[in-house]
Amino acid sequence: MANILELRTENIKKFVADQDIVTLQPEVDRCHQDLESGRKEGAEYLGWLHLPSQTAPDHLKEIEQSAKWIRDNCEAFVSVGIGGSYLGAKAAIDFGSHAFLNQRSSIARGGPEIYFAGQNISSDYLHDLLEILEDKKVCLNVVSKSGTTTEPAIAFRLLKQFMEKKYGSDELRKRIFVTTDPERGALKQLAGEEGYRCFVIPDNVGGRYSVLTPVGLLPIAVAGMDIGELIAGARECENLATRHTGLDSNPVYRYAVIRNVLYQKGKTIELMAAFHPALQTVVEWWRQLAGESEGKEAKGIFPATAEYTADLHSLGQWVQEGNRILYETFLRVASSGHFMEISESPGNQDGLNYLTGRSLDEVNEKAWQGTARAHLEGGVPNMTLTMKDRSAYSLGYLFYFFQRAVAMSGSLMGVNPFDQPGVEFYKKNMFQLLNKPGYEKGK
Amino acid sequence: MANILELRTENIKKFVADQDIVTLQPEVDRCHQDLESGRKEGAEYLGWLHLPSQTAPDHLKEIEQSAKWIRDNCEAFVSVGIGGSYLGAKAAIDFGSHAFLNQRSSIARGGPEIYFAGQNISSDYLHDLLEILEDKKVCLNVVSKSGTTTEPAIAFRLLKQFMEKKYGSDELRKRIFVTTDPERGALKQLAGEEGYRCFVIPDNVGGRYSVLTPVGLLPIAVAGMDIGELIAGARECENLATRHTGLDSNPVYRYAVIRNVLYQKGKTIELMAAFHPALQTVVEWWRQLAGESEGKEAKGIFPATAEYTADLHSLGQWVQEGNRILYETFLRVASSGHFMEISESPGNQDGLNYLTGRSLDEVNEKAWQGTARAHLEGGVPNMTLTMKDRSAYSLGYLFYFFQRAVAMSGSLMGVNPFDQPGVEFYKKNMFQLLNKPGYEKGK
Repeated sequence: MANILELRTENIKKFVADQDIVTLQPEVDRCHQDLESGRKEGAEYLGWLHLPSQTAPDHLKEIEQSAKWIRDNCEAFVSVGIGGSYLGAKAAIDFGSHAFLNQRSSIARGGPEIYFAGQNISSDYLHDLLEILEDKKVCLNVVSKSGTTTEPAIAFRLLKQFMEKKYGSDELRKRIFVTTDPERGALKQLAGEEGYRCFVIPDNVGGRYSVLTPVGLLPIAVAGMDIGELIAGARECENLATRHTGLDSNPVYRYAVIRNVLYQKGKTIELMAAFHPALQTVVEWWRQLAGESEGKEAKGIFPATAEYTADLHSLGQWVQEGNRILYETFLRVASSGHFMEISESPGNQDGLNYLTGRSLDEVNEKAWQGTARAHLEGGVPNMTLTMKDRSAYSLGYLFYFFQRAVAMSGSLMGVNPFDQPGVEFYKKNMFQLLNKPGYEKGK
Repeated sequence: MANILELRTENIKKFVADQDIVTLQPEVDRCHQDLESGRKEGAEYLGWLHLPSQTAPDHLKEIEQSAKWIRDNCEAFVSVGIGGSYLGAKAAIDFGSHAFLNQRSSIARGGPEIYFAGQNISSDYLHDLLEILEDKKVCLNVVSKSGTTTEPAIAFRLLKQFMEKKYGSDELRKRIFVTTDPERGALKQLAGEEGYRCFVIPDNVGGRYSVLTPVGLLPIAVAGMDIGELIAGARECENLATRHTGLDSNPVYRYAVIRNVLYQKGKTIELMAAFHPALQTVVEWWRQLAGESEGKEAKGIFPATAEYTADLHSLGQWVQEGNRILYETFLRVASSGHFMEISESPGNQDGLNYLTGRSLDEVNEKAWQGTARAHLEGGVPNMTLTMKDRSAYSLGYLFYFFQRAVAMSGSLMGVNPFDQPGVEFYKKNMFQLLNKPGYEKGK
């Protein structure tokens, strides 16, 4: 059987010597011990580390039951959240679904249309969303630990008012699902008062590491993905990463080490380029995970994303010949869901007949190989992560791979990969400008 | 009247002295003269420079007539192109349209659903697109200078075969619109043989500068945007940028100069952050324009993009406290199309009652101000470009602003901002791997 996820690193050899990697083994072992023993700074947020192996079947069953109810009783499902409270779910849904999910017929889709809100503050966006929801049976899932994060709180207040006009209180109660703190917070309190169905965000899992908790799992299940398989895939990677720390047998830590060596050598940007349009939000999810975990103390690799081959025709020139401060990681899928073949054209005006009988994905694979070689020759070290397929299992594996790799990478960089103190600054300024009680000017 | 586009630069003062800017005035004047006189390297691609003032009303009328026919006769419009052949059109359509354009009722939309193809090589994507198109009346617009660029050529071959099954040859002929070279190329030849309606990509306009040619204008008009207004807005900016070169009165060149000064001071990443979800593809269009124009000879500012406030909860930590190698440009809209107000909630569980009666856009504006101040305090110089509104006029102004600014910026950097030699390398490797005739191994 092919690997669930294969890491190829031959295109970094010109830049990273074997010795550069081997030298870091003791440091990796130390960081691994710190992670496993909970001695690390930020250890109160290590709940994700063995989450896959500790997830009980009953926990998934509960989520699946609510997801089934939603699939059976609504035409439009709105996930309300920002940052880690929606990116993982959106990544999985975009990865696992039809490219035009919301435009399919409801029969072909087999579940509701899926929307996101609370990830921006825009009258236009919310106005347009409410117009689309107007004549549909709607369910909401609001995801927020505190319930007071400005963006989702505003969206939820407006969506809830819209729902109150649409439904009586009994029906409304059934249609709102809350994912929040197990005990504290505004949303927990509201859910208690109103009788909404509640799912728990574990205390010891930070937002960007939360995709395998109900934060991600409920919306993902609503979209029809098998969350048991998602967790099973993550568990396989958890086992792999936990068992051996050796950099020749542990690709998770190997990727983390290579990032750090490249960073030390002046490569300050990682461009994560997806070779499949369904991976577009997966790389955005990675961007938060990597950026928020490492970007502190004036350190960090800048996480940039692209979709290839599309962006070879936009960013490709820069990558090939621009400022030599970046490296690439290609993320691809070996076996795609469909087979589309290029058939012969009698006139051959477009000159493509040499491709007759070959699939688009074969051409795409050659584009990847051609790009990897061209960029290497242009001075851009690159690695490739190849997923076996578009299954939930493969995606769960990938999610865990990146979580663990980023935790290791940030540890090697000497930062706490589990906090995000800088996110508060814009909020404080905004609250002051809005005269929020407690934040008035001069305070 | 408020400015159509306002550039604010007070948040770069800690990093860029007035003298740094003034010093570059003679160089700006020289580059300006080179641009205007056509003495510049790459002068054969300066057709965009005075395109807005040279666009004849009849030219627009022709495009509008085809657009009207398409709006009246099709339910799904597919734009086939890659890079500059679709990004400008998609940017304008996403900027000017409803947030969920394709999910609106056809009456509310008043025109066809709009899709893009040929910007990737993916069996899954094309399969899913064909499923969506199956029961709809379809028109295609294929955009390619040569007609042999691999990605759009493959998509067009498959879409054309799909259309041939759907329509007889007379009907088919009416439903395919070609935007290509005026005289040469595979697509021009095919269009002649088959009798497709043709629009011209001027010889002297490169892909990334082509949004105000039929490349962009036809799809934009199909989406219902007023292309006369788009050109008029661009013309106003053309006049402004042509008349004075003084860096105190010409914001286009001022932006270009500040970029260069920041770059010289070690700021190697520009993060273009949009404060409105409708600007998401506009910043992607900018990414190609800036990146492809400057990323050469081992030089260039890396163009990165974000959508705020969404990405303040993903990339925000990195920006606030990470590696101090970046600056930001905020792109925002002063007056949004809709007014959504936050109304009182009796329980105030979410603590938002202090915002009662205020609009989402006011909160968003404070988020922008709070972010600009927080990031400045964190060591990130930033500028802001504020568009007056979401009109075609404002967008045309913005498009021209960036085109001219990037041409100046690349000139100041000492590169040719109009070529893209590096884009060919991956293609050559790919063709060799695919055994394309003429590219066989060893050749």
